[in-house]
Amino acid sequence: MTAAPYSFSARHIGPGLDETRAMLATIGVPSVETLISQAVPKSIRLDRPLALPIPASEAEALAELSTTMAKNTVLKSFIGAGYHGVHVPSVIQRNLFENPAWYTAYTPYQAEISQGRLEMLFNFQTLVTELTGLPVASASLLDEATAVAEAVGIALRHHRDKRTKVALAGTPHPQTLDVVRTRAEPLGTEVDGETIDDNTAALLVSWPDTFGVYGDHRPAIEKARATGALVVFIADPLGLTLTDAPARLGADIAVGSMQRFGVPMGFGGPHAAYCAVSDRLTRLMPGRLVGQSTDSKGRPGYRLALQTREQHIRRDKATSNICTAQALLANMATAYAIWHGPAGLQAIAERIHTLANRLAAGLAASGVSVLGASRFDTVTVEAKGKADAIAAAAEKTGRLARLIDADHIGISFDETSTDADLDAIAALFGAKAGAAAGGTMPGQPRGKAFLTQPVFHENRSETDMMRFLRRLADKDLALDRAMIPLGSCTMKLNAAAEMMPVSWPDVANLHPFAPASHSAGYRAMTDELEGWLAEITGFDAVTLQPNAGSQGEYAGLLAIRGYHRSRGEGHRTVCLIPSSAHGTNPASAAMAGMSVVVVRCTEDGNIDIDDLKAKAAEHAQDLAALMFTYPSTHGVFEEGARDLCALIHEHGGQVYFDGANLNALVGLARPGDIGADVCHMNLHKTFCIPHGGGGPGVGPIGVKAHLKPYLPGHVNEGSGHAVSAAPFGSASILPITWMYIRMMGASGLKQATETAIISANYVATRLEAHFPVLYKGRHGRVAHECILDTRVLKDSAGISVDDVAKRLIDYGFHAPTMSFPVAGTLMVEPTESEPKSELDRFCDAMIAISGEAAKVAKGEWPLADNPLVNAPHTAAEALAGQWTHPYSRLEAAYPAGDADTAAKYWPPVSRIDNVAGDRNLVCSCPPLSEYLGAAE
Amino acid sequence: MTAAPYSFSARHIGPGLDETRAMLATIGVPSVETLISQAVPKSIRLDRPLALPIPASEAEALAELSTTMAKNTVLKSFIGAGYHGVHVPSVIQRNLFENPAWYTAYTPYQAEISQGRLEMLFNFQTLVTELTGLPVASASLLDEATAVAEAVGIALRHHRDKRTKVALAGTPHPQTLDVVRTRAEPLGTEVDGETIDDNTAALLVSWPDTFGVYGDHRPAIEKARATGALVVFIADPLGLTLTDAPARLGADIAVGSMQRFGVPMGFGGPHAAYCAVSDRLTRLMPGRLVGQSTDSKGRPGYRLALQTREQHIRRDKATSNICTAQALLANMATAYAIWHGPAGLQAIAERIHTLANRLAAGLAASGVSVLGASRFDTVTVEAKGKADAIAAAAEKTGRLARLIDADHIGISFDETSTDADLDAIAALFGAKAGAAAGGTMPGQPRGKAFLTQPVFHENRSETDMMRFLRRLADKDLALDRAMIPLGSCTMKLNAAAEMMPVSWPDVANLHPFAPASHSAGYRAMTDELEGWLAEITGFDAVTLQPNAGSQGEYAGLLAIRGYHRSRGEGHRTVCLIPSSAHGTNPASAAMAGMSVVVVRCTEDGNIDIDDLKAKAAEHAQDLAALMFTYPSTHGVFEEGARDLCALIHEHGGQVYFDGANLNALVGLARPGDIGADVCHMNLHKTFCIPHGGGGPGVGPIGVKAHLKPYLPGHVNEGSGHAVSAAPFGSASILPITWMYIRMMGASGLKQATETAIISANYVATRLEAHFPVLYKGRHGRVAHECILDTRVLKDSAGISVDDVAKRLIDYGFHAPTMSFPVAGTLMVEPTESEPKSELDRFCDAMIAISGEAAKVAKGEWPLADNPLVNAPHTAAEALAGQWTHPYSRLEAAYPAGDADTAAKYWPPVSRIDNVAGDRNLVCSCPPLSEYLGAAE
Repeated sequence: MTAAPYSFSARHIGPGLDETRAMLATIGVPSVETLISQAVPKSIRLDRPLALPIPASEAEALAELSTTMAKNTVLKSFIGAGYHGVHVPSVIQRNLFENPAWYTAYTPYQAEISQGRLEMLFNFQTLVTELTGLPVASASLLDEATAVAEAVGIALRHHRDKRTKVALAGTPHPQTLDVVRTRAEPLGTEVDGETIDDNTAALLVSWPDTFGVYGDHRPAIEKARATGALVVFIADPLGLTLTDAPARLGADIAVGSMQRFGVPMGFGGPHAAYCAVSDRLTRLMPGRLVGQSTDSKGRPGYRLALQTREQHIRRDKATSNICTAQALLANMATAYAIWHGPAGLQAIAERIHTLANRLAAGLAASGVSVLGASRFDTVTVEAKGKADAIAAAAEKTGRLARLIDADHIGISFDETSTDADLDAIAALFGAKAGAAAGGTMPGQPRGKAFLTQPVFHENRSETDMMRFLRRLADKDLALDRAMIPLGSCTMKLNAAAEMMPVSWPDVANLHPFAPASHSAGYRAMTDELEGWLAEITGFDAVTLQPNAGSQGEYAGLLAIRGYHRSRGEGHRTVCLIPSSAHGTNPASAAMAGMSVVVVRCTEDGNIDIDDLKAKAAEHAQDLAALMFTYPSTHGVFEEGARDLCALIHEHGGQVYFDGANLNALVGLARPGDIGADVCHMNLHKTFCIPHGGGGPGVGPIGVKAHLKPYLPGHVNEGSGHAVSAAPFGSASILPITWMYIRMMGASGLKQATETAIISANYVATRLEAHFPVLYKGRHGRVAHECILDTRVLKDSAGISVDDVAKRLIDYGFHAPTMSFPVAGTLMVEPTESEPKSELDRFCDAMIAISGEAAKVAKGEWPLADNPLVNAPHTAAEALAGQWTHPYSRLEAAYPAGDADTAAKYWPPVSRIDNVAGDRNLVCSCPPLSEYLGAAE
Repeated sequence: MTAAPYSFSARHIGPGLDETRAMLATIGVPSVETLISQAVPKSIRLDRPLALPIPASEAEALAELSTTMAKNTVLKSFIGAGYHGVHVPSVIQRNLFENPAWYTAYTPYQAEISQGRLEMLFNFQTLVTELTGLPVASASLLDEATAVAEAVGIALRHHRDKRTKVALAGTPHPQTLDVVRTRAEPLGTEVDGETIDDNTAALLVSWPDTFGVYGDHRPAIEKARATGALVVFIADPLGLTLTDAPARLGADIAVGSMQRFGVPMGFGGPHAAYCAVSDRLTRLMPGRLVGQSTDSKGRPGYRLALQTREQHIRRDKATSNICTAQALLANMATAYAIWHGPAGLQAIAERIHTLANRLAAGLAASGVSVLGASRFDTVTVEAKGKADAIAAAAEKTGRLARLIDADHIGISFDETSTDADLDAIAALFGAKAGAAAGGTMPGQPRGKAFLTQPVFHENRSETDMMRFLRRLADKDLALDRAMIPLGSCTMKLNAAAEMMPVSWPDVANLHPFAPASHSAGYRAMTDELEGWLAEITGFDAVTLQPNAGSQGEYAGLLAIRGYHRSRGEGHRTVCLIPSSAHGTNPASAAMAGMSVVVVRCTEDGNIDIDDLKAKAAEHAQDLAALMFTYPSTHGVFEEGARDLCALIHEHGGQVYFDGANLNALVGLARPGDIGADVCHMNLHKTFCIPHGGGGPGVGPIGVKAHLKPYLPGHVNEGSGHAVSAAPFGSASILPITWMYIRMMGASGLKQATETAIISANYVATRLEAHFPVLYKGRHGRVAHECILDTRVLKDSAGISVDDVAKRLIDYGFHAPTMSFPVAGTLMVEPTESEPKSELDRFCDAMIAISGEAAKVAKGEWPLADNPLVNAPHTAAEALAGQWTHPYSRLEAAYPAGDADTAAKYWPPVSRIDNVAGDRNLVCSCPPLSEYLGAAE
């Protein structure tokens, strides 16, 4: 029973009843149902309500989830294996992690309104280059296991796919090896032992290995270098604060997890992985890279660099299907390093190191053997036949040891470990903690000062840190200030009640490999969530493991591949992909060992059914799958989706349904009913996980029963073939989606979808007199987004889509998606969460911009000097002594004539020069010594 | 053991070692100790470290407090009696309550940088006037009990202290009656029965009474009005959403608690009380009042109205000693009302009302008697001799009933109550819940639409609400963006780790009258905290009950009064107060029934010892106390504090030590050692409770053993004579102070004090060439603050202290304390938390302002048009089409030439006209109907 008259859905959905009515009137339809029936083909409509629990109020849902998650048993973890207990500094927890200005921000494609998070990610890259000694680092990858797989990918591409072997120096964590093998197998790459020869693409050096040992891998590294194999360090970044940088030890690439830099374990994720490479590998490196450039006034400014490397440009020639990063978590890790500074990080590491050495010394004194002589934080103890008993005894003291096998126990210390823990653990082995002295790691001590950049020294006091985080946040425009009308990205409300559980200790502090019974709460939640998502999409099974949409695509294609192979049809490797598809589709297919055949689209953006028929027939013998997005990337519900699925099935193929646009379907139609065999869901789009300024994403997949056996497993759950490091991927943010569905219920979800469609059609209706709306359905309706053709301004006035996008900043908006899927256009997805007043503010701004362009067209303003081409306007420009422009200062900065001048968003830079930045790539902050050198 | 090299104290204290060294060099002393020995008289120095626990790290302290607070038993409360379970809307919890932009803000004395919180408090006043029907409401009082006492005070003043009786219509809550009696007794006022005659100053109408009954008080009200007694409604504001407004029922004044508007019970506080009055009582109303005025460009702007009423102006003629408000909680309550809107509030109220009526109907059907026929949320059940057993049975079901006496049980429903609760409670009495129909309250239903103002209708969606809260926060300048160098106010860091526990469920959700065993965690925490505060101040006992510094003063003076009376010296009623004292001192003394005798100050700001000696001797027979502030309100450690205490004791008086400046003493000297008998501590100054934009405050007192028997008690703790509604006052924010002391330890606290003194002397040293530093100690040093004499600019250039304060806004600063204690000066208290870089930024700004004034003096800029008199500059002005000023736009808005233009704080209004606002008092937003009327 809900106390208030407003259900959660009335809070989530922007327009109220009156506004909805007004919007329908503008569109020119008498009712919601009329519009929906015009937009959504009858053939695919779901004719019943979704079977979901009755919607709970905010308080009820929080209470229910709290009860569920209390079933978790959160003991102190000494399991290690890639996941470590942390103290999240409260100043970071409150001012970054729990701050909507940080977590609701979008990926920083629009550089001018993203300087804060770009600066932080730039600092992340600096942190990684400083730790690894390698010159170039990306702005994070998804997790350590996939980062290693990406490193292998770099090596394969470096060798132009002519080498097929990967060698190991030291044993990686089991989940890492499993993911690397999952990824290697479809590419015909072997990951095996220590042999290194001319066919070896990469040597993976585990630094340390999964048993905590830093082996002497110099001979292997030398051999690798001699044969041309790339040397990949999988290195614990905290350990690196004490030892020489991997680059000095021979690494070409270094990867690892930044989790222990102040990001909670969260039952497996999300965390940021890092990846650094030598200069020659820069353009092979996957993922995002933040670079420094200059703005139109010559001020330094950050932006995403080398975007042409990205998968949506390169398609099946892409270097990776990585499309997102773990920006929020990378930013947390960076803030942690800034907070502690190099000396603080080293002190934390030294303390951990001492605990481990004291345990090892104590065990040695008692005659207990341990593996290896060189360790950072982990002691692997030989306990012949007694490992089970010791792990059980540890659990009785409230501590979790790592049960490696019947004869080995692993103990990993972290920053939360205490002397009391050390004593209790030593006692488990009948020993006492030894003296503080102890072994060192190879390359220890770190010879050279690191992290000398000012930012790692200026924010020691909490007052400084709090203001630093606010200053960065204030540079950015996120959902907490304005609409972000990004087509295909579904920037909807991330409700506070959805976010709250992520901070709960029993959500945040569970190790992903804790005994299964300890995650009873998590498993109850994920079971429910899987069931709800299956019901919503019409599938028989759902896996939550993929931690990005791209990973979902990949897992789905692997399932299709597994299915074909199980039936002796392993030769089915052709994947049909429409030309309009998002670039991740072909990239994922290539990674899954499939060959891509492109299906043409018609002029109105739909799949060319004739071409599809022809290609399907042509490849009937080796047809693996069709991948298609629905509603289409053009924002239209194409007719005949069911027929299209049937056609593929007829030819022995499977249907992969790209769920990027699921926000137009939930409650109205189900991919499974339409005929899809597999579909991924972007929980960070349709299901309210915030974009975090560029990640995390979550991309579960649903499958029909026949594909279920081929879903990813996990070595720690008794299977394998995982696509992510952790069994439930980014488990700790799944409560966000759970809360959303639990509070919305079937009626709320359906109403949200309807409102998303109403809002898109409202925007289309209001703006079509000014900008042609490209691609509509049979009844002249769009789905949940619309494409506005700004090329009319180019034609009439020479004003580009870029000018429009940047001018929108002066009006206080994040630009819509630019030039996707059609160059020169803006794709607007208002979502259901935006109130009508904000939609109107946006439409008014677009109409005003059209009017501004008209002035240019009429010659009132010269093409070289008008508010559009000069946009965005910073405060410094607006106040400049000389004002030479043909428009006024107020027209520059307050084009909408805002009454509330204090509410204006001021961009910190003017237009960023992307080309210059790519030409002269600067991707990390040089150490202080270089400044000093320059000054001398 | 702390993991990192930086202890919490190194996070709390702004300057690091290097900066401290540089600051000492500027001051011209070789060491910290040298400076301290110059600033602090040797005679008072503490010669040992404080006996406090070894400092804990952030993580350790959080873990320890979490373990302690887990000892609380938080059952579902049906106790009522003024405290109710609530659902805090998550959007408010995260974006307001847990947002430093809201909680670190100062009291909005500087209107131009406080428009956001002023607007919210204005909405609070509107909310209260709409609910009560009375035309004027204040911006909140401390709690319901003191609000009733303040209402009585209004009535007494209204009758020019010629009436001495207060009558009751219905029984108020016991804690309310107790506080009212505490406050009435020293004034010779009787609070007794129902008799109303020509000596009755006020009739207190309990609406409902403590048993939940809405009696028919029409005859009493009529009689009161006939005799001229004021009618005071003590009304549940949620109940008021269903009934006629008190003004229509005859009220002159309405007071009550806004706690149930979305503020957690928090074991008693802090919550906002409301107070509304009829027009003729406006100028008698205590506390702050936000009024609308206009700025220098004619834009509407808010500011505190009628400040001349305030106690620091009127001193012992003050209408009240109320000096703070509960701004943060009033803002939360307002946000709750905005979020739910009138329809939502009514729906919540109706549901509660139905639950209560269904219980009453069910009990009646089973032959169980209940008190009264007219209720809102509470049913008081007759249970002859069985009340204990029923309460115990309720507890077994996880519910707390109110055990009124052996024969009566109270059940109060709230917005968290469910049908299951109703059924379980009915079952306790052997009954079943009745039908939904039921009784009404007098004046039900509410005839007239209320809360028709747009703000209560425009923020229904969470997206709107989130942005609304951010927009308001962005208008204000709080500690999360810049230093707030307010002398006497100690605006230091409110660390995130200190704030975290306030949100914990076992801190937030405990009823203050739950069985004592249920608050075991709270009591363990408060026991420790009392012990630490006693050690820090050198006293034998501490009470945490007073919920503001002024209430501490009052409680301390009552203890002194009680002591004298116990010795048969009740005639000792003279209170000596130096002329430099804060205005609350004489106001508190007057409230405690004392007569104030003012002691002169010397020209250098010290107490005139000769005058003190003379006055003490003159009043030796009736000397009650001396109240003095140390270091003095002039920011100096006066010599001879010990002698002064001895002198008072010699003459039979007690020494009240005003702890406003305790931040200069902690760890260096103790009031108890110096000779004080009682002292209050402002936890919201020295001990890190945030100012919340104008409250909450907390003002515990420490006393020597002989005064301990006269500390306030509480009716629910087996005693009485309380000064606050709840036994531990604002209990839920005490963990902030606990965390601070636990993490700082003795060494950290001492270092903080030293750094505060260093910082003040650093600012004084840097600025004295530009602004004379008034009042120094014997060695030319100030204490923890310094007074800068800006009158030199008035003399040389005609620039006022106001101009300087407002110009500081353009430089991105909150002005220091203005014209206190000396007119025309600024008192700067940098605190220990500000980094040197921020102190330098401030000093640079002050020096630049001095330079700007010099230009005016030299005639380069006319007095009527220069950046000082025109300050602050809004963006609208800075961008205006015509720029006619003799200085540039950039000089107007970026006087420090900031490189990072995006980080600038832009004031939303230019200078506010205070006089115009007071002349034409607008203190609430008119209902929509008036707008419509005006438009027609």
